[in-house]
Amino acid sequence: MAEASHKPIPLLKDELDIVIPTIRNLDFLEMWRPFFEPYHLIIVQDGDPSKVIKVPEGFDYELYNRNDINRILGPKASCISFKDSACRCFGYMVSKKKYIYTIDDDCFVAKDPSGHDINALEQHIKNLLSASTPHFFNTLYDPYREGADFVRGYPFSLREGVPTAVSHGLWLNIPDYDAPTQLVKPRERNTRYVDAVLTIPKGTLFPMCGMNLAFDRELIGPAMYFGLMGDGQPIGRYDDMWAGWCVKVITDHLGLGVKTGLPYIWHSKASNPFVNLKKEYKGIFWQEEIIPFFQNATLSKDSTSVQQCYIELSKQVKEKLSPIDPYFTKLADAMVTWIEAWDELNTPSEAKSSKAANGTAAK
Amino acid sequence: MAEASHKPIPLLKDELDIVIPTIRNLDFLEMWRPFFEPYHLIIVQDGDPSKVIKVPEGFDYELYNRNDINRILGPKASCISFKDSACRCFGYMVSKKKYIYTIDDDCFVAKDPSGHDINALEQHIKNLLSASTPHFFNTLYDPYREGADFVRGYPFSLREGVPTAVSHGLWLNIPDYDAPTQLVKPRERNTRYVDAVLTIPKGTLFPMCGMNLAFDRELIGPAMYFGLMGDGQPIGRYDDMWAGWCVKVITDHLGLGVKTGLPYIWHSKASNPFVNLKKEYKGIFWQEEIIPFFQNATLSKDSTSVQQCYIELSKQVKEKLSPIDPYFTKLADAMVTWIEAWDELNTPSEAKSSKAANGTAAK
Repeated sequence: MAEASHKPIPLLKDELDIVIPTIRNLDFLEMWRPFFEPYHLIIVQDGDPSKVIKVPEGFDYELYNRNDINRILGPKASCISFKDSACRCFGYMVSKKKYIYTIDDDCFVAKDPSGHDINALEQHIKNLLSASTPHFFNTLYDPYREGADFVRGYPFSLREGVPTAVSHGLWLNIPDYDAPTQLVKPRERNTRYVDAVLTIPKGTLFPMCGMNLAFDRELIGPAMYFGLMGDGQPIGRYDDMWAGWCVKVITDHLGLGVKTGLPYIWHSKASNPFVNLKKEYKGIFWQEEIIPFFQNATLSKDSTSVQQCYIELSKQVKEKLSPIDPYFTKLADAMVTWIEAWDELNTPSEAKSSKAANGTAAK
Repeated sequence: MAEASHKPIPLLKDELDIVIPTIRNLDFLEMWRPFFEPYHLIIVQDGDPSKVIKVPEGFDYELYNRNDINRILGPKASCISFKDSACRCFGYMVSKKKYIYTIDDDCFVAKDPSGHDINALEQHIKNLLSASTPHFFNTLYDPYREGADFVRGYPFSLREGVPTAVSHGLWLNIPDYDAPTQLVKPRERNTRYVDAVLTIPKGTLFPMCGMNLAFDRELIGPAMYFGLMGDGQPIGRYDDMWAGWCVKVITDHLGLGVKTGLPYIWHSKASNPFVNLKKEYKGIFWQEEIIPFFQNATLSKDSTSVQQCYIELSKQVKEKLSPIDPYFTKLADAMVTWIEAWDELNTPSEAKSSKAANGTAAK
């Protein structure tokens, strides 16, 4: 409590869960203590469920391992990846909060150019609570930020913006490169602090990274499915990309916004590029067809909820992507299972208090 | 010559013209001397042609006043605005270089966060000489910059990018606000240096400001028409906006890129918001219809040159925007005249050496 005078005011303390997928003790939380301690954590333990994950004292958390996931979802647990951080999306599903922040356990507090610790969560919340501007580009970046505004020539009818569904944060130190780029540039570090938040325009896809990501569950939660990756699957490291493509098509359709830029976290350790290449190589081929598919995907006017959009998208995935590989048929089915499971755990009344409460509420 | 050791190497010295519209002595060039002196200037004198504009010693320039424009273009001079900085586009037309940089005479050298003078022209040239990435968003901004690259999930087939046609720079100090925003926020200054260059995605329009702008004449020159503004026209301060909308539709159609961000210049003086409001107010209404028009504009496959695209666009302007105001019929006709004049001055052979050479080559 020594740093009381600098203690940040925890915004949305009772409306946001922090979701962390992990296979190890969560010592990294020590560095985040001043920022995360007021919040509730949902820890999704990947891999061997018999392993005990240590969480530093003082954090309020619930922890789910594979046994918990299987028990809670039953046969529908098949839609949750195993041995891949894609399992984190189970945490999105069991949360009962309006907002989610998810972070990897190799991500630490970064410093801004003046040497101050960056409160990443606070910036994400600011991003989510202010509107997005996907319909026209503002050259001075986020027009709602203090000291900024819409520039000359920005239509006044668009200045109210649209609700923000996603806030995508960035990484100093180890950039989020694919295996080929890691192999070619093993020493490249991201040292550039770009002091900007911007809306990704409507109709434009982006590579959404799950390392440092926040979103509004009520607006977009059911589309934040991280797919089938890892154990038993032909592909890995495309979990967040998959979610990002789906999310962007659906936010565009529903008139919601996606922001990227601040906040930065400090990404401490590059993952093994050889291991990554093995996980990624099919994705590197496949994305050449998947991305045009998503770029051209349109949803019908009848799809007005995220769930409806997602089910419609799953049908298009099955039809248009299955010719690439039978994996996409399985994935399309898993997308449907995910929505069924989501709705089961997130119906307005009873489900909230029954099934989900069976998680290992460790504290 | 005292600063010889810091003297920048002038990139593209013989391939770039600097176009400056002005009504006053060009003392502002003193501050730009280290950066601009190696280049050729094209000064477009607005207003009273009998006034003598003083240019500091040592600059290599040609100057055109209204009499010159009338003499060179004859009846086609009607497409060049008078008493409005839109007249600058005459300079684009008479240039014989591949690249243009245009800057306002109230713009000075800005400093980067480490206190060094920003060589705006050098940054623009770097922007123009490196590719753009309009088809997919790179979250670490310009992937070609040193220390950056494409992030995980960026399709490899898109990593070569497309040729860059336009580099749109920004402004520290006085932001480029419309009159209403100027009136509401008279004291707002832009103090934030965002260390980024990014490609404006395909299909997204932006408010292009002519204060600090560079482009590739060969790739997009004929679309850089600044419209009919000022004297005798119902509107002002939409010259660069008009050009930006047309340019973006055409670059998207032709597979070219538009970048925005660095470099910054120091914009010294806010123009009078009351005067601006008078010039702008029709545009503020009209842009609510004009922007959707441009957002939905598509060009036919047969239009493969900038000129063809521009003529096709002029027809759509006449058809779709004339119902707003008869002004747009006049503007659509002027767009055609502009292309005719451009082609007259820019035919491969004789025109180059004849008409344009009649300008007041003042030095």
